[in-house]
Amino acid sequence: MKRRYLMTPGPSPVPSFIREALAQEIMHHRTEEFIEILKETNENIKYLFCTQNPVVTLTSSGTGAMEAAVANLFSAKDKVAAVCGGKFGERWLEIAKAYSLDTIQFDVEWGTSPSVEKLKKIMDENKDLKGILTTLSETSTATVFDIAALAALTKGTNVLLVVDAISGLGQDTLKSDEWGVDVVVSGSQKGLMLPPGLAFISVSPKAQNAMKTATLPKYYFNLTKALKAYEKNDTPWTPAVSLIVGLRESLKAVKQEPMEAHWARYQKMAQGCREAGASIGLKVYSQSPSSSVTAFRVPEGINAKDIVKKMRREYGISIAAGQGDIEEKVIRIATMGWINEQDLLMCFSVLEKVLKDMGYKFKLGASVARLQEVLYS
Amino acid sequence: MKRRYLMTPGPSPVPSFIREALAQEIMHHRTEEFIEILKETNENIKYLFCTQNPVVTLTSSGTGAMEAAVANLFSAKDKVAAVCGGKFGERWLEIAKAYSLDTIQFDVEWGTSPSVEKLKKIMDENKDLKGILTTLSETSTATVFDIAALAALTKGTNVLLVVDAISGLGQDTLKSDEWGVDVVVSGSQKGLMLPPGLAFISVSPKAQNAMKTATLPKYYFNLTKALKAYEKNDTPWTPAVSLIVGLRESLKAVKQEPMEAHWARYQKMAQGCREAGASIGLKVYSQSPSSSVTAFRVPEGINAKDIVKKMRREYGISIAAGQGDIEEKVIRIATMGWINEQDLLMCFSVLEKVLKDMGYKFKLGASVARLQEVLYS
Repeated sequence: MKRRYLMTPGPSPVPSFIREALAQEIMHHRTEEFIEILKETNENIKYLFCTQNPVVTLTSSGTGAMEAAVANLFSAKDKVAAVCGGKFGERWLEIAKAYSLDTIQFDVEWGTSPSVEKLKKIMDENKDLKGILTTLSETSTATVFDIAALAALTKGTNVLLVVDAISGLGQDTLKSDEWGVDVVVSGSQKGLMLPPGLAFISVSPKAQNAMKTATLPKYYFNLTKALKAYEKNDTPWTPAVSLIVGLRESLKAVKQEPMEAHWARYQKMAQGCREAGASIGLKVYSQSPSSSVTAFRVPEGINAKDIVKKMRREYGISIAAGQGDIEEKVIRIATMGWINEQDLLMCFSVLEKVLKDMGYKFKLGASVARLQEVLYS
Repeated sequence: MKRRYLMTPGPSPVPSFIREALAQEIMHHRTEEFIEILKETNENIKYLFCTQNPVVTLTSSGTGAMEAAVANLFSAKDKVAAVCGGKFGERWLEIAKAYSLDTIQFDVEWGTSPSVEKLKKIMDENKDLKGILTTLSETSTATVFDIAALAALTKGTNVLLVVDAISGLGQDTLKSDEWGVDVVVSGSQKGLMLPPGLAFISVSPKAQNAMKTATLPKYYFNLTKALKAYEKNDTPWTPAVSLIVGLRESLKAVKQEPMEAHWARYQKMAQGCREAGASIGLKVYSQSPSSSVTAFRVPEGINAKDIVKKMRREYGISIAAGQGDIEEKVIRIATMGWINEQDLLMCFSVLEKVLKDMGYKFKLGASVARLQEVLYS
């Protein structure tokens, strides 16, 4: 009789109207019917990416699309800067190194947005810099990076701005074309309300141009092949048909709301989340908090993993602990995709109960009341 | 009111007991509950692969697992032979070339199994040969290759035998360990009765040893990372959770039947299919026909693609035309996964009707009667 509630930064809950689509009878991917679906999702996903560039759908986790970006844009020894302010920035660094790029590790204090001045300096000092690999919402620290400012740096230069928006897309404002972001990568299991298994990558004309001379080996993630198929609403390999049928429903739902209103909804939830936590003494970890996920430092003497375990085992509610060095020091609560205000209220009610049981002192109900104030203002 | 019937060699039909599993509420992949599922699927998939080697589950199409094999087993300039007897053998060649391997293109007449003598000669003349890349069931020509004979050649040598069993696994006999196959690759959308989106790769100790010195770049498909996670029933990246929940149901069903009986069931269907076609003058294309799919030469003056179109548009039945040079010359009917005798009877009934409408002369009912004789013998 235990109900499950997902408040984790991916996978996030999948609504029943999408789950029903996933359960439909399978169709063949080389039929007029499926081509129509792919045509629709190819068009509608541009809305979410705020771009007129092609957005290619890949069958993989988001990490596969990150690798696709590196393997298709660069050649061995090309110089790139990987912005490392958390686990997912480090993933960029690892991928770039796996492909023998000449990698500048640009360390950023966890929980902060990268310094635009310092990145500008790197660009000035490295005239041969080919790309900056960075993150919209660094899930591990629940931090949003100022992508608009970074794009202003790279726009009109030869440097490609490549953004991992896997967890941020849909919640954290990202105006790909208006800002001039070259490549945006995302996945299905966050803002898109789908199970994991699809990844997406948008490719600007500047990035497509870079692809022409890039020589790193690739096959499954070959974007030249993928773009050629994309023109005909096709895919080079058998795609995850059922997930794409689900994607159609997801994008239909997303398109019902102007993007500004869409972002505002999550921003308000994230703000409510932060203020609710603060009202019971939980300090927000990030100095540049994401709208997709919020990280709180846990009270002295309590292990974040114990909070997570108690919430999951006793109440079926999944939140996340930290990652890396802060694994035991923070808890993370997502506000993405299908997660709504009611989920957040429920989550804080139970979080209060769990913290109380663990001996933490605060006024029961305070965070829920604060959350109501923000949400219902 | 049009019902859809899938008789294509992938995607093949997904039964409702699996589709219901796909539609379950999503769960987080780092929970005890999901680890239990992965533990079960990791164990049970060995049964289908007839191996005690680890079988890693990847989130990708089968092609991704083919790339994983190449990128993890070899280094640039390593010499490999790619057995090219159809589109999927050519895919091995393309992947090997994309990764700058020293590639021997071993051409095999389409519709035949590779000559063991000729391959032995290649091995004798190329003492530095590192691997043979081949196929169990070459879907494009509906041809099964004699993997047992090839394994007898490579067993005890330094040459790795790497087999694409994407469409063949479950229908065409493959005794990985007994024969000594080093690496077997498969996908979810054929014998496993799932939607596309998962791929599998088994890795023998000899192959794991080769991985230690292989230097090709890889990240998402890094099997060293994947095997490390596998030991803990984990995955390095977010897996396609819903497909793995479906995989559990699929493997439970597969395990209810001894593998010999399982193979025999499809072999009988494929035999029935061949004899049914022959009884109305359709010549079987392959000289070494697969049990997973059967290709027939279409009658003089009829285009295979027109048959496929009519069957799909007028009756909702999807069969496949040929691929490559034989695209318009053959039709292909699958006998894999959830496809059963009744489907086959239905398919031949309608195929007769369509051929009759196209002006082809034969005795109506002949193929269905012949099929019944074989199936009910």
